[in-house]
Amino acid sequence: MLISTIIKAVDLKNIKITDNYLGDRIKLVTDQVIPYQWKALNDEIPGAPKSHSIENFRIAAGQTAGEFHGMPFQDSDLAKWIEAASYSLIHQPNKELEQKIDNVIDLISAAQLENGYMNTYFTVAKPDSKWTDFSHGHELYCAGHLIEAAVAYFEATGKKKFLDIMCRFVDHIDSIMGPEPHKRQVYCGHEEIELALIKLYKVTNERRYLKLCEYFINERGKQPCFLAEENGFALGANDRWFHLDYHQAHLPVREQVTAEGHSVRAMYLYCAMTDLAIETNDEQLKDVLKKLWDNVTNRRMYITGGIGSQGHGERFTLDYDLPNDVAYAETCASIGLIFWANRMLKMDPDGKYADILELALYNSVLSGMSLDGTKYFYVNPLEVFPETASYRHDHKHIAAQRVGWFGCACCPPNIARMLTSLGEYIYTQSNDGIQVQLYIGNESEFTIGGNKVKLSMNTNYPISGDVLIDMDVETSHTFSIGLRIPTWSSDFKVMLNGETITTGVKIVNGYLYINRQWDKGDQISLQFEMEAKKVRANPRVRENAGKIALKRGPIVFCLEEVDNGSWLTSLSIPKNAEITFKEKGGKPFIQVEATRLVEDSFYGNLYGSEEVEVEKVEAKAIPYSDWGNRTPGEMLVWIRES
Amino acid sequence: MLISTIIKAVDLKNIKITDNYLGDRIKLVTDQVIPYQWKALNDEIPGAPKSHSIENFRIAAGQTAGEFHGMPFQDSDLAKWIEAASYSLIHQPNKELEQKIDNVIDLISAAQLENGYMNTYFTVAKPDSKWTDFSHGHELYCAGHLIEAAVAYFEATGKKKFLDIMCRFVDHIDSIMGPEPHKRQVYCGHEEIELALIKLYKVTNERRYLKLCEYFINERGKQPCFLAEENGFALGANDRWFHLDYHQAHLPVREQVTAEGHSVRAMYLYCAMTDLAIETNDEQLKDVLKKLWDNVTNRRMYITGGIGSQGHGERFTLDYDLPNDVAYAETCASIGLIFWANRMLKMDPDGKYADILELALYNSVLSGMSLDGTKYFYVNPLEVFPETASYRHDHKHIAAQRVGWFGCACCPPNIARMLTSLGEYIYTQSNDGIQVQLYIGNESEFTIGGNKVKLSMNTNYPISGDVLIDMDVETSHTFSIGLRIPTWSSDFKVMLNGETITTGVKIVNGYLYINRQWDKGDQISLQFEMEAKKVRANPRVRENAGKIALKRGPIVFCLEEVDNGSWLTSLSIPKNAEITFKEKGGKPFIQVEATRLVEDSFYGNLYGSEEVEVEKVEAKAIPYSDWGNRTPGEMLVWIRES
Repeated sequence: MLISTIIKAVDLKNIKITDNYLGDRIKLVTDQVIPYQWKALNDEIPGAPKSHSIENFRIAAGQTAGEFHGMPFQDSDLAKWIEAASYSLIHQPNKELEQKIDNVIDLISAAQLENGYMNTYFTVAKPDSKWTDFSHGHELYCAGHLIEAAVAYFEATGKKKFLDIMCRFVDHIDSIMGPEPHKRQVYCGHEEIELALIKLYKVTNERRYLKLCEYFINERGKQPCFLAEENGFALGANDRWFHLDYHQAHLPVREQVTAEGHSVRAMYLYCAMTDLAIETNDEQLKDVLKKLWDNVTNRRMYITGGIGSQGHGERFTLDYDLPNDVAYAETCASIGLIFWANRMLKMDPDGKYADILELALYNSVLSGMSLDGTKYFYVNPLEVFPETASYRHDHKHIAAQRVGWFGCACCPPNIARMLTSLGEYIYTQSNDGIQVQLYIGNESEFTIGGNKVKLSMNTNYPISGDVLIDMDVETSHTFSIGLRIPTWSSDFKVMLNGETITTGVKIVNGYLYINRQWDKGDQISLQFEMEAKKVRANPRVRENAGKIALKRGPIVFCLEEVDNGSWLTSLSIPKNAEITFKEKGGKPFIQVEATRLVEDSFYGNLYGSEEVEVEKVEAKAIPYSDWGNRTPGEMLVWIRES
Repeated sequence: MLISTIIKAVDLKNIKITDNYLGDRIKLVTDQVIPYQWKALNDEIPGAPKSHSIENFRIAAGQTAGEFHGMPFQDSDLAKWIEAASYSLIHQPNKELEQKIDNVIDLISAAQLENGYMNTYFTVAKPDSKWTDFSHGHELYCAGHLIEAAVAYFEATGKKKFLDIMCRFVDHIDSIMGPEPHKRQVYCGHEEIELALIKLYKVTNERRYLKLCEYFINERGKQPCFLAEENGFALGANDRWFHLDYHQAHLPVREQVTAEGHSVRAMYLYCAMTDLAIETNDEQLKDVLKKLWDNVTNRRMYITGGIGSQGHGERFTLDYDLPNDVAYAETCASIGLIFWANRMLKMDPDGKYADILELALYNSVLSGMSLDGTKYFYVNPLEVFPETASYRHDHKHIAAQRVGWFGCACCPPNIARMLTSLGEYIYTQSNDGIQVQLYIGNESEFTIGGNKVKLSMNTNYPISGDVLIDMDVETSHTFSIGLRIPTWSSDFKVMLNGETITTGVKIVNGYLYINRQWDKGDQISLQFEMEAKKVRANPRVRENAGKIALKRGPIVFCLEEVDNGSWLTSLSIPKNAEITFKEKGGKPFIQVEATRLVEDSFYGNLYGSEEVEVEKVEAKAIPYSDWGNRTPGEMLVWIRES
């Protein structure tokens, strides 16, 4: 093995994204989305559902009178916004924004109770019911997001106040929950605090936080399960889709080998399990995680990287049960999948994790936000017929157009924190080198063996499969560069300083490793074969039998009504159709020969025994992530092949 | 026009069914189902949901103490059973059964209040809430079914007691509801009494009953609508699928040109509208009914004759919205479609109505009952994957197997009354002759122009397309025989006494009319071309694009797992596949060349860009109506064409 097993993330501070394709979106988040979402949190977006998130803190702090409004987990919207805003400060210092965050941290501090407890829902609306509803109360979940925000703000600014607030809260939690007989043996219905505790442990070095995380994970799913006994579980008692598996509490986590229940909950749990497995080198846990990964990505994932195929319970269902029109595929769940993939990469250096990370990023996550950053999809179906989506009861979770905000607004700030921290996903670093996971234009700095290494990645990826990496080393020295070879690429060429590399090169688990002495001015040139092609689903995905999806590199394409007329299911792509990739103004698209069933040939009949006439047409497909940004209409990913 | 516009039903007493294909099912109903359902109504079926229907009447009559149990419309289960049992008495006198009915009529009488009111739910459970919930209370609906039962029993036995009971109730209703200012301007949320009132009018000649029917129909849908104001509408206020359109009360009925809302409600309304249009020769109403018929059968009907494509609200949705796996297609709705088609035939003598009547009968109605008569489908999907059906929330209305009884048991007795009165649907009669609507073996007697005419129809239809009709006339005389030419038949041959007919023959609106002097011993021989063929759906039915269904004559076929292995969606039928019809022991089936996607060729991957390997297989399809009578498993009507 060329690669060390100790793989670390790269500090966000050392990565500056300069990417053509994603750079604009990140800038959009920094310049537009973060201010927009701040307004949303302050109820200043006309027509959008009220957030009340800031106001809830003011009421909890006793600064204004009023009633709590929103979901029990409304605090987490603010937390994710702070986290996103903190990441944005790393690359784009903004005194005004920092001041806003300082003010809101003061507000959070004022809302904290004497004993460290903090949650505006329970403080304001249910002061006597704290820690009584672990199934749906989200107290530990909100704590987790606030911890993540505090860690991010500390890393961005070095300011400790928010971190101290959260340590006080965690100390309080740690004093009342845990394995000791005098504490409560409980955990949160919605996982999140577990991964946050590991982050907190890493910045504070306080092993109690790691222990508490380990406790929450190992306690989860022990039977009989306390969740089934508590009041908050009433929902689950009446509705089997909210049973223990909804909370990943149906089995001890080490016995869970299929992804069950609420998909965001599952992702956040698996993230924490992976962190813990790495931290404690727990081989049993690693084995479970590999099985879960296989189940999610080889049985229960849409081609877009969307997960969770049922709206009711926002959850996983069965192997191969992936309906396109009633998909849930929550934006947050795909973000969770990216978080998890990023951790799996560090646990088990295999390109397959980065392949999925890239897939979810370019498709089901980017689709969550409009191109102008002001509208969001919570749910990401793979087939939308607006009339059906707005009419049928079983489509009621489907929106045919993005909206400005949600009553349950978990997704918008989640996209923001994902994109503003994207630098963390481009590389991993081991003690003997650097691994390139994503091909995103950037300038970055590493320290390897005590030497500074600067990399500059220039690419028009994923519009082009060509990538140039320029090396700037302080002093020439030997280390390894691992270059992920995406599985979608049928061929690739790597050159060093314009020549084919012949020695010191090895391909292991999806990476091409170049181990050599690097000199200032060295240039790696990568050319990934990136043809537009048809992708087919396993025949067990019954909705996709006989259908194809169009994909090029990591990008999944879709048909839209605005380009192809209505009744998109009338279109099919012949087996030998010519598929042409094009690009205009930075916008990729595919042109493909297609045929269309001619409805007129049915003379208004509903059924007939004649063959349906077909006409030749040219279909145009655009990236799935970009659908719904023009005239509203139908959308289709899986197209019949004829 | 050879045919008179005055088309009448033929008295059930004069038709004896001797059919090979359906005769056994009718005998099953008479011998097994009626006694079985009597036990169900008396809560004597182990394991089946409690009916309590008889007991509710005992409690209402003060004969036993206890609480009402069941749906507010539980009385109608008994009513439909009496109706079915009455029809069975016509051909199979059964003193014991007649005595049972007499006893239950005594019980019904005892449960009637002084003023004529009768409804066990309101009498027992909500005595102070009578006539307060027209949306969901079903008082007039139950009255309607009891009227239908009373008319049937009167026609079967000549006994008037039940009829008198119901006249008293209707007189009470008529005294408090109607257009006059001192009465209430109301109608029932669930139509049924309207068609029953016309039946009652026809046996009693009491024009007040016709007027009341006319009032209920014309009042329906006037805006503002009283239903939206009443308590019972609360359900509708919170749930848009239960709004006024659910009750066909969103527009005055004469302005309704698309089928909306609860499909059984819609059918029963359209039945009454058709009866009324005929009775009052209302051309405006006739025109509306033709538009509604076109909308239902050319936009909103499954190939099986199933209607209502959404479980929530058991209702119609949008044109061409006909999903197969989450279809509702309630058995009762298809029975309602038959009732309506039968009336449309009398209003507008066109074979298209009988085509649909036949289609629904042989497919979506027969599928409602198991071959042994003891198990029922309420919902009739066109694609069932048991694991999905039992798991997914949006499939919760789908049963992968028939069950013994339902808490809401409208369907089982509805099938029973449909099949025991099937004789009514075979012929219509005009003043100048007889029209053959269905090719069902029978012996029958008519009076035409004062002369007795006996027909004997011998056929192995629909296994064979050959039909022999033997004529036995008292004295030779001239009249017309209309023979429906089913639209599914691409060719046919008619012979008279072994020779091609050359004169006095005309084809009008789907019938071949033979107008001549008929002599004793004349024999008509019909040969309908009945090849097994592929049927395609209008391309706007997006679920069926690129798919075919197998059909032969009126019978729709389906694939079952027990014959074809699992993952039925892996199968496809090549364009040029040979389709072979076979029959074994009276059971028709189709053998067809098919291909199967080989899952193994995916090596466990979820997505891949290779073409999926296919293997040649032979598929076997059985009648849709017979699915689910062997080893439980998958079922599929619409198959991919490749």
